[in-house]
Amino acid sequence: MTDATPHIVIIGGGFAGLWATRALAGDAVRITLVDRGNHHLFQPLLYQVATAGLSAPDIAAPLRHILRRQRNVTVLMDEAVSIDTAAHTVRLRDGEPLTYDCLLVGSGATHAYFGHDDWAAHAPGLKTLDDALLIRRRVLSAFERAEAEPDARARRALLTFAIVGGGPTGVELAGTLAEIARHTLKREFRRIDPRETRVMLLEAGPRVLSSFPESLSAKARAQLEKLGVEVRTGTPVGAIDAEGVQLGEERIAARTVLWAAGVAASKLARALGAPLDRAGRVLVQPDLSLPDAPEVFVAGDLASVQQDGKPVPGVAPAAKQMGAHVARAIRARLAGRPTPAFRYRDFGNLATIGRNKAIVELHGLRLSGFPAWLFWLVVHIFFLIGFRNRLIVMLNWTWAYWSYQRAARIILGK
Amino acid sequence: MTDATPHIVIIGGGFAGLWATRALAGDAVRITLVDRGNHHLFQPLLYQVATAGLSAPDIAAPLRHILRRQRNVTVLMDEAVSIDTAAHTVRLRDGEPLTYDCLLVGSGATHAYFGHDDWAAHAPGLKTLDDALLIRRRVLSAFERAEAEPDARARRALLTFAIVGGGPTGVELAGTLAEIARHTLKREFRRIDPRETRVMLLEAGPRVLSSFPESLSAKARAQLEKLGVEVRTGTPVGAIDAEGVQLGEERIAARTVLWAAGVAASKLARALGAPLDRAGRVLVQPDLSLPDAPEVFVAGDLASVQQDGKPVPGVAPAAKQMGAHVARAIRARLAGRPTPAFRYRDFGNLATIGRNKAIVELHGLRLSGFPAWLFWLVVHIFFLIGFRNRLIVMLNWTWAYWSYQRAARIILGK
Repeated sequence: MTDATPHIVIIGGGFAGLWATRALAGDAVRITLVDRGNHHLFQPLLYQVATAGLSAPDIAAPLRHILRRQRNVTVLMDEAVSIDTAAHTVRLRDGEPLTYDCLLVGSGATHAYFGHDDWAAHAPGLKTLDDALLIRRRVLSAFERAEAEPDARARRALLTFAIVGGGPTGVELAGTLAEIARHTLKREFRRIDPRETRVMLLEAGPRVLSSFPESLSAKARAQLEKLGVEVRTGTPVGAIDAEGVQLGEERIAARTVLWAAGVAASKLARALGAPLDRAGRVLVQPDLSLPDAPEVFVAGDLASVQQDGKPVPGVAPAAKQMGAHVARAIRARLAGRPTPAFRYRDFGNLATIGRNKAIVELHGLRLSGFPAWLFWLVVHIFFLIGFRNRLIVMLNWTWAYWSYQRAARIILGK
Repeated sequence: MTDATPHIVIIGGGFAGLWATRALAGDAVRITLVDRGNHHLFQPLLYQVATAGLSAPDIAAPLRHILRRQRNVTVLMDEAVSIDTAAHTVRLRDGEPLTYDCLLVGSGATHAYFGHDDWAAHAPGLKTLDDALLIRRRVLSAFERAEAEPDARARRALLTFAIVGGGPTGVELAGTLAEIARHTLKREFRRIDPRETRVMLLEAGPRVLSSFPESLSAKARAQLEKLGVEVRTGTPVGAIDAEGVQLGEERIAARTVLWAAGVAASKLARALGAPLDRAGRVLVQPDLSLPDAPEVFVAGDLASVQQDGKPVPGVAPAAKQMGAHVARAIRARLAGRPTPAFRYRDFGNLATIGRNKAIVELHGLRLSGFPAWLFWLVVHIFFLIGFRNRLIVMLNWTWAYWSYQRAARIILGK
């Protein structure tokens, strides 16, 4: 390929960026894929790393390994710090600037604290593998410290876990923490009884998993409560510090607070000079391009797309579909054809709560409990990237189901 | 058990401490096992984590999980900071001080830089899982940065890896890095050719793996060179900084330097007030106790033991034997019987170099190449702790053998 070959720059190796890259495998283009990390992450299982069920490498794969056979791609581990849509250039933190013919920005979302950035230190969120390992360390260390703590009050605070946000991540974390306390750790301590652990799920809105129909939300809540989780809805958090959480007049002494409430688009959205929605996502055109820069596309969690009066949800299938769509739009554009409009195909909605517990909605079909959980399991193993990862995750889950144990209960870092 | 039950404090959950603890499972004692981490680590495979072949949890298991059924043990995650042998107390960093009837100190060894502590930042050593993840990050990042580096000289320095020390760890690291460069990464970069990577093994003494007979050392060297490693013996390192290594008059520009040369006993040895050898290890009595405190024992890498005019080597089987011996000695002491003398049984010596490459010495039997490697493999899977870990490691190795891939090529941390 010569230098006249169109240069496509793709920022972010998540579902949107990677699916766009792979869809362009047969095209006469040069692609540069830029990601801050060296890996594609299977985010739907990130909570399993945070709760010590899987190791970090089980749900991630090096981007350049995934793309090793696609000769029209160069992978760069670097961070895009600014974009000049007039000059068609992307500035990187370490490397030389990149000039593009077409650009896809798929740098995703991060957690937001609604203006309370000081909460971040006390209530880590879950978006990257480093976040997951930090949460794993805090959760496992809380039990270790409780075992050594002579003061009963301090011990209770160490054994209280507050999860803020009743969406899928909050529900997964709460359900799994309750299982760890009641089953995994049951016989392993001598001074404390981990079954006295208190797991609280705090949701500001009226119900958990609000993207599901009300009847399934109610089932999810019942399943959480069966696991021993205290579910509080209509409970906005007033303050978070190192000692716990303030809920209106009530003070919860909890040494471990996890944040699963707010999501904000990555800062790169602002660099595009395009209109943003309230969460900082880019309001894109029907073909996912920018209003004033038709060669620049936005996909995945960074894109704000409405369809039939509803927002397209920030889930993996939507990001993959957007990525594949952008590949088609780029192909059309380079051929001088009009770009097609994006259309999201909703294949259904799944959420897991714990062992044998989940809810599923598929075109009107509603499942909960064991059948929903089995369906969730099969889908997640099927969509994992890499044969080895599928095998290892299957093996770990089989072992965990049989033994109630978790494979990665190792405290790393200080 | 009442408070009159003898209290045994064991510092360190490595091979010595864990084997002593398990050997006391049936005794009428209270045991407190203190470790800085929450896990027992299978150190012989630590280089596999550093070189992205295995995940951290694959070679570690939570101490309290291993010991969950042994009701006479309390596990504490804490650090012993000082020992008062007169008052029979151990002071901990976080928790209440512990008073013991018998004490086993098995806190092991750390790396030493022969008085050049400033080298530590540039040449990390390999003793803990955190060390291994730091090395993994540096090694993987060096290739990533080389791919983005426009300057040829800087690129060469990024693709030069210098390993200091030709003992087992240095040989394992050098052999595996050469394999990664030549096989694992072969087709994955577009601007660099990882096969141009230079891996140097720098040994101050006359040969690598000097604990083996000369003929096997020579075979190991030949196997390393076949993998493309530049082996330099009789080459003491004069200086190490961020840019590379000084060897006499020669300057090696290497952005990644790994330290596998010096070992020093943990600082706790000095707290015992007993005579130490040059490496800071405790010169123990024949029964592994201290000269002035017969109720205090030292085992594992922290103990300096001579047998038949030779030092007992700092290897896992020796540490396990010492741990089991200390359990017997404690039992004898509590029963008012004389304590037996420790006797090391040498079952042989193994070292691996890479795929199909190893050396083995077993009671005069000498193996090298494929049979030695197969033997090494079987022994290491057999001695791993935990059924799940054995299964996962076997599965990862089968996959790696067949695909030349490495399971954990994920960059974590900043």
